[in-house]
Amino acid sequence: MDYIEILGLVAAILTTAGYVPQVYKTWVDKSTKDISLTTYLVLFVGVVLWLIYGLMISSLPVTLANAVTACLLFLMLVLKFKYK
Amino acid sequence: MDYIEILGLVAAILTTAGYVPQVYKTWVDKSTKDISLTTYLVLFVGVVLWLIYGLMISSLPVTLANAVTACLLFLMLVLKFKYK
Repeated sequence: MDYIEILGLVAAILTTAGYVPQVYKTWVDKSTKDISLTTYLVLFVGVVLWLIYGLMISSLPVTLANAVTACLLFLMLVLKFKYK
Repeated sequence: MDYIEILGLVAAILTTAGYVPQVYKTWVDKSTKDISLTTYLVLFVGVVLWLIYGLMISSLPVTLANAVTACLLFLMLVLKFKYK
């Protein structure tokens, strides 16, 4: 694995794991007033398309990273509807 | 452009433009209580790494999409510090 691949891997981990603190905060605070529903809906659809794209080009990193991100964004949508 | 490329393009547009409603909402509401600072910091660093990755592999779509996303995430960080 060369350093460009490592850079992409670190970037993928950060843009996936980055949503964990938001999910945790919303889970604990039970408040979503300041969270944009539109943003999470659009991001969720976009990430699902990235996931399909990853499957089509047979890229495990793209598929895996976007599968995890899709789950985290879906959790945020559930929390947004639960604590609206 | 084949349909896989179009799928990737639509995905890139959605996961970039998706942050616009959140920036607009935060700008208007002037409230960031429910927004996780950690999430936006980690996403910002991750997207900047994607941007560098895009430059290194000479991919205009990766570079451009992540440059726009980095700007939107930076705006959210500014708003988070302004309206904390």
